[in-house]
Amino acid sequence: MRIGDLSRRTGVPVPTIKFYSREGLLPAGQRTSPNQVSYSESHVRRLKLIRAMLEVGGLSVAAAREVLAKVDSPFTTIHGVLGVAQSAITRPTAEREDDEGRRAQAEREVAELVKRHGWEVKPENPGWKALVQIVVTYRDLDREDLLALLDRYADSAGELAVAELAVLEDVPGADGKVEGAVLGTVLGDAAMAALRRIAQEDVSGRVRPTRHSA
Amino acid sequence: MRIGDLSRRTGVPVPTIKFYSREGLLPAGQRTSPNQVSYSESHVRRLKLIRAMLEVGGLSVAAAREVLAKVDSPFTTIHGVLGVAQSAITRPTAEREDDEGRRAQAEREVAELVKRHGWEVKPENPGWKALVQIVVTYRDLDREDLLALLDRYADSAGELAVAELAVLEDVPGADGKVEGAVLGTVLGDAAMAALRRIAQEDVSGRVRPTRHSA
Repeated sequence: MRIGDLSRRTGVPVPTIKFYSREGLLPAGQRTSPNQVSYSESHVRRLKLIRAMLEVGGLSVAAAREVLAKVDSPFTTIHGVLGVAQSAITRPTAEREDDEGRRAQAEREVAELVKRHGWEVKPENPGWKALVQIVVTYRDLDREDLLALLDRYADSAGELAVAELAVLEDVPGADGKVEGAVLGTVLGDAAMAALRRIAQEDVSGRVRPTRHSA
Repeated sequence: MRIGDLSRRTGVPVPTIKFYSREGLLPAGQRTSPNQVSYSESHVRRLKLIRAMLEVGGLSVAAAREVLAKVDSPFTTIHGVLGVAQSAITRPTAEREDDEGRRAQAEREVAELVKRHGWEVKPENPGWKALVQIVVTYRDLDREDLLALLDRYADSAGELAVAELAVLEDVPGADGKVEGAVLGTVLGDAAMAALRRIAQEDVSGRVRPTRHSA
């Protein structure tokens, strides 16, 4: 199909398609004559995946490019794609110099939590560093009560990861598995956050109102 | 204490403290003489809360200002603070014109999911709109398999919301409850995302490697 058909099929304007192509997100079409380029069904699918990552997942163009390069690598494993997708959507947390002692303590606590849940992961995992900063912050504010919730979050995260990977195992082709790993990471996070908003509104609406002391 | 002591206590540089004050995040100190302003323990705590929201939660200054205005309102309830904190951290999703029919279908599906879980929430909930866009995207990519996971996410979100609100109920003062609601929303999301990274790496590492078809 021509670029105009690709645009109609996907709802992505022609200049945007050209931008994605220049930025290396969308592979070039096949040149069929000096002034005509032809696009296939795989371009339709790729454009939908790009929109999912950028518009719903909130990834930057650079982050999406990195994820798609991994997706297109012939030696990609689900484990490898997950790692890249994870790094791409994890906002780097600012480390502060004044935190050194507290950071070392938080590092130990996160390592213990990981061990307690029987997880085998490298400390370079982007979630690990983020979690250390969260522990430092809770402790800084003396919120041991909220810190105690981390094991509950961890239980849920573990159950969801098993369910997510079971879905990927059932997908027939490797391409579908890899795409599923990207979407599961990027959109799965967004879905979980959205459902937390809904559940929190429901539960907090049932709590009897407490006036805030002035 | 003077602004220099406040800076030392919190690790926040003096110019940054002045910036937060100008931006309306930090209440002014008390002027004790023509060229001296005194800060209290409440300023120390507020600065820590500001850093948690900006640096760990990733909120913009404008979003943090909105949340803190609600925190400082004498008529604030946990339900009200949660609503403002939720809106502040939810990235608005782009609605696309070509999606109208699919959007209406996704709206119905989200309404059914909410009903199925017995939740009482308004469709203006920021999570609701985000979830509709996620459903549209999964369906656009024919990923019914990932769509089927939403009820699992919803179960976990529901359990966590109950645990989170139980913690808030146990906090003695209203101020602590309100602060806890802000932190639980902002840092709770970040903690859940971080733990998902860790659990996913663990589970995907146990799956036998699948070479990606070229």
